[in-house]
Amino acid sequence: MPLYDLLFKPENSLVVQSRHARMGVEAINGDGFGLGWYGAMGTPGIFRSTEPAWNDRNLLEIATQSVADRVFAHIRASTGTAIQQTNCHPFRHGRWLWMHNGAIADFHEVKRDLALAVLPSLFPDIEGSTDSELFFFLALTFGLEQDPPRAVAAAVGLIEEVGRRHGVQHPIQMTVATTDGETTWVFRYSSEGRSRSLFHTVDISTLREQYPDNPVIHELSDDARLVVSEPLGSLIGAWEEVPESTCLVLRGGRLASHDFSPTRARAMA
Amino acid sequence: MPLYDLLFKPENSLVVQSRHARMGVEAINGDGFGLGWYGAMGTPGIFRSTEPAWNDRNLLEIATQSVADRVFAHIRASTGTAIQQTNCHPFRHGRWLWMHNGAIADFHEVKRDLALAVLPSLFPDIEGSTDSELFFFLALTFGLEQDPPRAVAAAVGLIEEVGRRHGVQHPIQMTVATTDGETTWVFRYSSEGRSRSLFHTVDISTLREQYPDNPVIHELSDDARLVVSEPLGSLIGAWEEVPESTCLVLRGGRLASHDFSPTRARAMA
Amino acid sequence: MPLYDLLFKPENSLVVQSRHARMGVEAINGDGFGLGWYGAMGTPGIFRSTEPAWNDRNLLEIATQSVADRVFAHIRASTGTAIQQTNCHPFRHGRWLWMHNGAIADFHEVKRDLALAVLPSLFPDIEGSTDSELFFFLALTFGLEQDPPRAVAAAVGLIEEVGRRHGVQHPIQMTVATTDGETTWVFRYSSEGRSRSLFHTVDISTLREQYPDNPVIHELSDDARLVVSEPLGSLIGAWEEVPESTCLVLRGGRLASHDFSPTRARAMA
Amino acid sequence: MPLYDLLFKPENSLVVQSRHARMGVEAINGDGFGLGWYGAMGTPGIFRSTEPAWNDRNLLEIATQSVADRVFAHIRASTGTAIQQTNCHPFRHGRWLWMHNGAIADFHEVKRDLALAVLPSLFPDIEGSTDSELFFFLALTFGLEQDPPRAVAAAVGLIEEVGRRHGVQHPIQMTVATTDGETTWVFRYSSEGRSRSLFHTVDISTLREQYPDNPVIHELSDDARLVVSEPLGSLIGAWEEVPESTCLVLRGGRLASHDFSPTRARAMA
Repeated sequence: MPLYDLLFKPENSLVVQSRHARMGVEAINGDGFGLGWYGAMGTPGIFRSTEPAWNDRNLLEIATQSVADRVFAHIRASTGTAIQQTNCHPFRHGRWLWMHNGAIADFHEVKRDLALAVLPSLFPDIEGSTDSELFFFLALTFGLEQDPPRAVAAAVGLIEEVGRRHGVQHPIQMTVATTDGETTWVFRYSSEGRSRSLFHTVDISTLREQYPDNPVIHELSDDARLVVSEPLGSLIGAWEEVPESTCLVLRGGRLASHDFSPTRARAMA
Repeated sequence: MPLYDLLFKPENSLVVQSRHARMGVEAINGDGFGLGWYGAMGTPGIFRSTEPAWNDRNLLEIATQSVADRVFAHIRASTGTAIQQTNCHPFRHGRWLWMHNGAIADFHEVKRDLALAVLPSLFPDIEGSTDSELFFFLALTFGLEQDPPRAVAAAVGLIEEVGRRHGVQHPIQMTVATTDGETTWVFRYSSEGRSRSLFHTVDISTLREQYPDNPVIHELSDDARLVVSEPLGSLIGAWEEVPESTCLVLRGGRLASHDFSPTRARAMA
Repeated sequence: MPLYDLLFKPENSLVVQSRHARMGVEAINGDGFGLGWYGAMGTPGIFRSTEPAWNDRNLLEIATQSVADRVFAHIRASTGTAIQQTNCHPFRHGRWLWMHNGAIADFHEVKRDLALAVLPSLFPDIEGSTDSELFFFLALTFGLEQDPPRAVAAAVGLIEEVGRRHGVQHPIQMTVATTDGETTWVFRYSSEGRSRSLFHTVDISTLREQYPDNPVIHELSDDARLVVSEPLGSLIGAWEEVPESTCLVLRGGRLASHDFSPTRARAMA
Repeated sequence: MPLYDLLFKPENSLVVQSRHARMGVEAINGDGFGLGWYGAMGTPGIFRSTEPAWNDRNLLEIATQSVADRVFAHIRASTGTAIQQTNCHPFRHGRWLWMHNGAIADFHEVKRDLALAVLPSLFPDIEGSTDSELFFFLALTFGLEQDPPRAVAAAVGLIEEVGRRHGVQHPIQMTVATTDGETTWVFRYSSEGRSRSLFHTVDISTLREQYPDNPVIHELSDDARLVVSEPLGSLIGAWEEVPESTCLVLRGGRLASHDFSPTRARAMA
């Protein structure tokens, strides 16, 4: 479907949320944004900017012109690191995209230990300075491209272990989405058990029955699924909250939900 | 074809030209750039940035992911007006795109008189401060959407008349391209008779015979045509210079060439 | 005093207001910002950026390093015109600075008529597309450099006359500040009588008596005056609201308050 | 003196060099720029931007308004790392500034080993992704703040050792300038013995005698010294080339020249 219908049209669209998020820790997510989508090539494209999403004309243009089967979109509220494209989500590695809502606690303290755990051959490809990108590289180190749930569990396990070694009480909180262009994995977890909000849409055919006149729903294909930090609208019955400590797997319109818990990092060796 | 193959791949691609133009007045065209293309919607999209084309990552991403039937691309060397998106080409009005290489001489002197000639209902839509955008609005005022060669001739006639009234010897020099998405009109003209360079590709089937192994040519469809300020490569026989005082009309792979000369502005009344 | 002490240190500093304005029409003023100050040269410097004030590192650097006798600072919430430096306040002409909080109603409808009223010799210097800059050029046209209150009264009179001719009920609302580097004039007015908020500090020596321990007040010289859209802190007795339809004149620590009302534009001829 | 007189006025000013460097590896240095200067505070200010120096209006404004005793200015031609403020020179740590012209060869290969050598307490403060910033952090690690020539010698020694371990023939080439605000140290060195160009001005009083009518020289104080990659003008006798493998020390108008050679990194332990 047209990206415009996702990013701009809904009552509580991502661009609206960039100014007035309702559920986020920050009401304003004006420190850049990013889009990742699968277009003409095997590898996905990313369009990232340091401007607020609400006033970036190029975002509006690209959203208006583009149709994609699978799109990642992110708005950023910096937790202190620089406002620069290389700190904007989604991050990319080959065919893979990654975005993260949350934070590694006391990142300044644990950054070096985490960076050293990144596979030496991947280390030089770290371009930015955020916890989210480093988390991605840890997941890649632990085999994201082979077994995403296992790799994310190991990365989170390491982050918790390193954090606790530095005296951090609740080392991580996260919702994470990652995809290879075919399957998407989404995680909700935090050390404290109070993660950022996460929702997915219910089955589209169910929604169509409930709202026969809604044009956005009408245009969505049967296997369309949205996974969002906040519902984009107020349709009762359209959105289902993802529970804590969960991994969703989305593929071809099917959605499976699994428990998620970090594994001890030594599993890596 | 993929935009990447036009903008980045050729030996003398537009992005290469942004650093080292060979034929331009300015060797460096680093004051922003723009793309216009016809995508999912009736109206074209425009992607414009104030950064040099050579270091804008989003340009590379979009070019890599996008395929278009018709694309306008422009690199800018400011002649003094501000470096801002609204001064970047192409300009858009409804379905129409416009880009200009050249200058209205002594623009500061003639700007007000030209602005007053713009149709009052169009005037408030002028967003930038360049001569090129004002030229576009004059062409729209004179009926660009109905009869482009006639409208451009009238606009140039007015620019020359106003310039001469202000004592300007050579009021305009230009290559201009404009399109409604179906047909493209390209103009080469200057008051002095020494316009910026302009080339178009010869028939693709001829080129294919000459260069059976060239991959770019191989991928181009039979009716592909490039019109450029500088040849993108050094293939002998591929590029033909557009003569002074000419209007090219391109539609569905066919190319027609007509004489072009400005008309007296009173034709407007 | 150091600009940092004005822009960043106060509890409700301008940078804080850029994210969470309390009294403004818009809570977020993230569409660029600007500083104007009198430094080493006769003409003032202006530093303007399209980024939100809260995440522009250069603003923090410049504020930290700079000391100025007189500074204009502005955060912008666009009412629709482009996010570009030439639309950021303050605007400058020779020794004069100008900034505006408010709007010319239905600007799209009246823009051309107002632009035509600008002195032809000044017209080509208009660089942006905002109502605020055009308002400045109208004030210059009516003699801002000779008699600011009279020129602003005439400019507002014209804006109201043109607006009403186009059927606009309340053509303008404004707080405006302008200075030549020696004297500052500040205006609060709106056609409807419900202008944006405006405050000034009371006499510094009075404040010092009330708050002997407050470091910011301690550092301010006896003749320091702040004029702001919103109080920068919660000191009772520090801030006095400027009444509707008022022109303040500040010079050398002295502050005079006059009634302000627009004059009929024909006074211009 | 006014920064404008250094950055914009000279025939071959830094801003001119950003478009047309004569001696550099790259003729165009359009990938951002930076200024560092000591203003109102103990720590220096830095103003960095990703735009080309030649079209950044804020640079012109700040240069026009500012006077400084000591200023670092840099124009960047990226060797591949991202165009972002955190990759622009000068870099800052406390009172110290650092800028580098040159490159660590095969940086992608040696980056991790060099990053691991940075003092763990400093590591998290690395914000960008360039070789130049990492070089700065290595110098800090080896005691830049205590003994700059010794620290730079050790950092270069390590870079050469790590490079050679990875099979790099000529691991580094550099001109480096660093200051604590009182003394400035400048280095010219490369593993190959073919470093980037480096010049300093001769004694100002000598120049005044030779060019009694030159206004720039006239305004310079007796102890003014410029150290530059390229002479800013064509005055015969004004500029002296710094030899290979040299460390200059500038303090209060006095200039001392020492031999410079890297030390084996094990000196660090």
